[in-house]
Amino acid sequence: MLHKHKFPFWYLSLPVGSAKRMRTFALFLTTMASSFTVCRLHMRGRILSKRYCSSALSSAEKIECKSLHALQVERQDQAEKSVLISCQSRTSEKKFLKFLSKHGDIKKYFFYESYGVYAVVEFASRDSVSSLLESATIPSISQESIVPFKSRLLSIRNLSSVNQQLNRKHLGFLLLGCVEQQILSLTKAYQLTEENSRLRFLVCSLLKDIAAAYFPECTIRPFGSSVNGFGKLGCDLDMFLDLDSISGVCLQPKSGFSLEYQMKRVNSERAITQSVLSVIGECVDQFGPGCAGVQKILNARCPLVRFSHQPSGFQCDLTANNRVAMKSTELLYLYGELDPRVRSLVFTIRSWARSHGITSSIPGAWITNFSLTIMVLFFLQRRGPPIIPTLDHLRDLAGPEDRSMIEGSDCTFVRDFSKIQLQNNTETLEQLLCEFFEFYATFPFSRMSINIRKGKEQNKPEMSPLHIQNPFETSLNVSKNVNSTQLDRFMALCQESSWLLQQNKTSTPNNTPTPWGLATLLLPSQVAGIKSGKKRRREPASERIKSLLESLKKQNQEKTG
Amino acid sequence: MLHKHKFPFWYLSLPVGSAKRMRTFALFLTTMASSFTVCRLHMRGRILSKRYCSSALSSAEKIECKSLHALQVERQDQAEKSVLISCQSRTSEKKFLKFLSKHGDIKKYFFYESYGVYAVVEFASRDSVSSLLESATIPSISQESIVPFKSRLLSIRNLSSVNQQLNRKHLGFLLLGCVEQQILSLTKAYQLTEENSRLRFLVCSLLKDIAAAYFPECTIRPFGSSVNGFGKLGCDLDMFLDLDSISGVCLQPKSGFSLEYQMKRVNSERAITQSVLSVIGECVDQFGPGCAGVQKILNARCPLVRFSHQPSGFQCDLTANNRVAMKSTELLYLYGELDPRVRSLVFTIRSWARSHGITSSIPGAWITNFSLTIMVLFFLQRRGPPIIPTLDHLRDLAGPEDRSMIEGSDCTFVRDFSKIQLQNNTETLEQLLCEFFEFYATFPFSRMSINIRKGKEQNKPEMSPLHIQNPFETSLNVSKNVNSTQLDRFMALCQESSWLLQQNKTSTPNNTPTPWGLATLLLPSQVAGIKSGKKRRREPASERIKSLLESLKKQNQEKTG
Repeated sequence: MLHKHKFPFWYLSLPVGSAKRMRTFALFLTTMASSFTVCRLHMRGRILSKRYCSSALSSAEKIECKSLHALQVERQDQAEKSVLISCQSRTSEKKFLKFLSKHGDIKKYFFYESYGVYAVVEFASRDSVSSLLESATIPSISQESIVPFKSRLLSIRNLSSVNQQLNRKHLGFLLLGCVEQQILSLTKAYQLTEENSRLRFLVCSLLKDIAAAYFPECTIRPFGSSVNGFGKLGCDLDMFLDLDSISGVCLQPKSGFSLEYQMKRVNSERAITQSVLSVIGECVDQFGPGCAGVQKILNARCPLVRFSHQPSGFQCDLTANNRVAMKSTELLYLYGELDPRVRSLVFTIRSWARSHGITSSIPGAWITNFSLTIMVLFFLQRRGPPIIPTLDHLRDLAGPEDRSMIEGSDCTFVRDFSKIQLQNNTETLEQLLCEFFEFYATFPFSRMSINIRKGKEQNKPEMSPLHIQNPFETSLNVSKNVNSTQLDRFMALCQESSWLLQQNKTSTPNNTPTPWGLATLLLPSQVAGIKSGKKRRREPASERIKSLLESLKKQNQEKTG
Repeated sequence: MLHKHKFPFWYLSLPVGSAKRMRTFALFLTTMASSFTVCRLHMRGRILSKRYCSSALSSAEKIECKSLHALQVERQDQAEKSVLISCQSRTSEKKFLKFLSKHGDIKKYFFYESYGVYAVVEFASRDSVSSLLESATIPSISQESIVPFKSRLLSIRNLSSVNQQLNRKHLGFLLLGCVEQQILSLTKAYQLTEENSRLRFLVCSLLKDIAAAYFPECTIRPFGSSVNGFGKLGCDLDMFLDLDSISGVCLQPKSGFSLEYQMKRVNSERAITQSVLSVIGECVDQFGPGCAGVQKILNARCPLVRFSHQPSGFQCDLTANNRVAMKSTELLYLYGELDPRVRSLVFTIRSWARSHGITSSIPGAWITNFSLTIMVLFFLQRRGPPIIPTLDHLRDLAGPEDRSMIEGSDCTFVRDFSKIQLQNNTETLEQLLCEFFEFYATFPFSRMSINIRKGKEQNKPEMSPLHIQNPFETSLNVSKNVNSTQLDRFMALCQESSWLLQQNKTSTPNNTPTPWGLATLLLPSQVAGIKSGKKRRREPASERIKSLLESLKKQNQEKTG
């Protein structure tokens, strides 16, 4: 049965309108509560092609250690062969497929629920997409008028029988089991699924159709959480418009006549970015079906267009000329691929930080997810033996093909995973989690800077409370925004969590309704309330989570008993 | 020799920035002075194709009485096979052609002078244009940045020898000769040339490339003066974006599944027009090479985007959903084709009105060119026998294929010229001009309305000083804006001009420096100064024109002597 009135999990953290304003106070509540009502993008239906073996393709890719570039190329290709179809009434899956198959072989499809039910359908060939689009009609509506802009976002009509189920997982179970299991379950539950990842590339591809109208050679690539391996379901979709493939064509003939395009001249690269984003933003706003709340933020340090893509449920940020961010994404992806403990620890720390209001989606003096990730990486470099190598080491391993200088910053590091030799560290995730809290509870933040390039703390070059060197733009501090109040809260919470985990070691998981292990860490803290301004909401949330855990325990007993 | 620092004539009446503000006062001066420095778009070079016989093609078309629709289709086709090339240094024509011919046969080309020298080159096939564009490079510039938007506006570089001349006509001579000759010379001198007309369609076609990026099935057509046959060199380029070919596709399948594009819904056709024009305006502004001063005037009764297209020198207005205006254009075109005296008389009256400040390019209480044209048409319907038929007669001749209802207005009239029988009126242009002034000097404006549908004055339905029924939207008054001061000036000037022409009849043209015939009418009036606010500028202008006529007379004597 369809649960029509429940949005998928990532809607809970998608800021649409007033939801955003509520978030500061409801943060803890939603983060925890959503764990128990999550509806994830779930692959369903028969497998239609041998090339697609299981929904665990992304795990297979991890074993291969595919480069981010190769992954992106593959994903883009899938996206360009895909269409997004709104199923306004309930669909007979068999008839639906039969109808679409008239245009060519379907390679992959899945349904998901957003504002209504949608299907992503990937064809084996682009010609099938063209054929499908040719057969589509303009909506005939009497009351309203329509902007006749055609895209790969379609609606299917006149559907007959019901045969649709969306799979829902109850994450409550995930927090039972030993700490190691809890961490792995949390990671699995929150990380981007195959389907969610495809949908992100599809949204990029739909937006590329808009940009390509004027810049046929451009590409739009996701960056940040959507592709660095640390993205949580519901994270924003950051996109990067690459016009360099166009600007690159500057052939100069040797002699005689030559023709040049007449082009508008402006006084900076930044002005071009602003021009291009202004037009794309206008187009998304005026023509883009399902695109809402479009904001052109063109005077920001990094100009962007922000909008909600309702059919996918993603909050989107489109930037251009943001190459260093692309390199950071690649580096984080690489670190995540090197050892499975990296992602699990990052996911756990991020969830912990979010549930205590250490991080926030609202700009402010908070620690960002990016800073937190760098802190985890730095911690893993400081183990004995280190779990991951330093950035300087990765740079030393780089060949000429890896060389990358962007705006004066050396962004070179090895991209061939096989060249990287890891040391033999066998610590468990539970140990690492515990050590992480201890490490940062006692870190000499007042004197030292966190530096993943050297893999060693360095003397602070400036007086910000928290100093984390930007991995590529080394003169910058990633956490310049963090004030001492927020740093103090972080340290206090590390200390408390470290203590709580030590307490747990003496007990074992049983069917007690008391939160245990990782769950303890995600509960309201005794120390975190200090100056966080969220005290009032904490009590009811605490009560609620206790009762949820209780009911889950009962369900569990019924199942196992 | 190139006269690099002289702009073509139509620049003089092209409002760019402050030029517009100056116009009220400088109007008479420029109108008259420009007659003597005009540089028209002039066809040059060898004839490259048998299909193109002479620059008098438009006269040939007049004999055929081609419908406006057929003319537009032909012009659009030419435009889509053409490119616009800026020749930044002096060009060897032979080498220029040899270079371009590598991409295919050239059907037609001509040079003209705007801000620099430009060439319009029409190829025999569209593939040649694609081939040419593929060979073009992105400008490599160090100081500035460029917006990499590719269009058919190009620059040619690295040119060697000089072989270029632009033909200039001195219109001073045109005002010598008998009145009949003067009128014909004036018409010939001011009406759009073959080249200017091609350039107008080319600008539409370049703009269509921009709109077609999102609406591949759209068309952009010029309307108004650019195509109705009454356009003067330098008149604005009014364009109409037609999206109806897209909206038209609303096939409804009989049963089963069907796919529809998801499209943005808005609450009116007007809102669509605003959306589309907003995006196109943004694009023209941000990407359009040579497009300057872009204004989005979206809240006007008829939303539009206004900009200067510098390479052509045209002031452009782009509207959408303006179908009645398109029909008015077609009607005026038809009347102009029916009898050669129609255009000549309209040209003369328009020039006369402009030189006395009866019309103005600035919105206000002035009589518009459109109103003036309707007045001429009405006058010609009132002759005995009538020179042109009434609109009701044209409607009665219409077949089912001519039927046209637009927003509740009956815009039906016959479009097949051969069905129209004209009566035998042999009046000369001089007679008609004289009678026109007499007709309107004594017209009972206070009681009667001008009505080309009936071809007979009607009782005024409302109290505006001047009432001219809109030919299609019959409840509207075309000249609602005109106040009684302006109408009084018009009547006084008609009376004065009528008297001046009567005086002329007694003398014959000789080589006297005193303005004669039509020239007298275009000189400052004794009565026109009343309440026109232009008195101060008139004396020097009057002096100037006298000295110009004197110098022209001397040149003439030298040539003939």
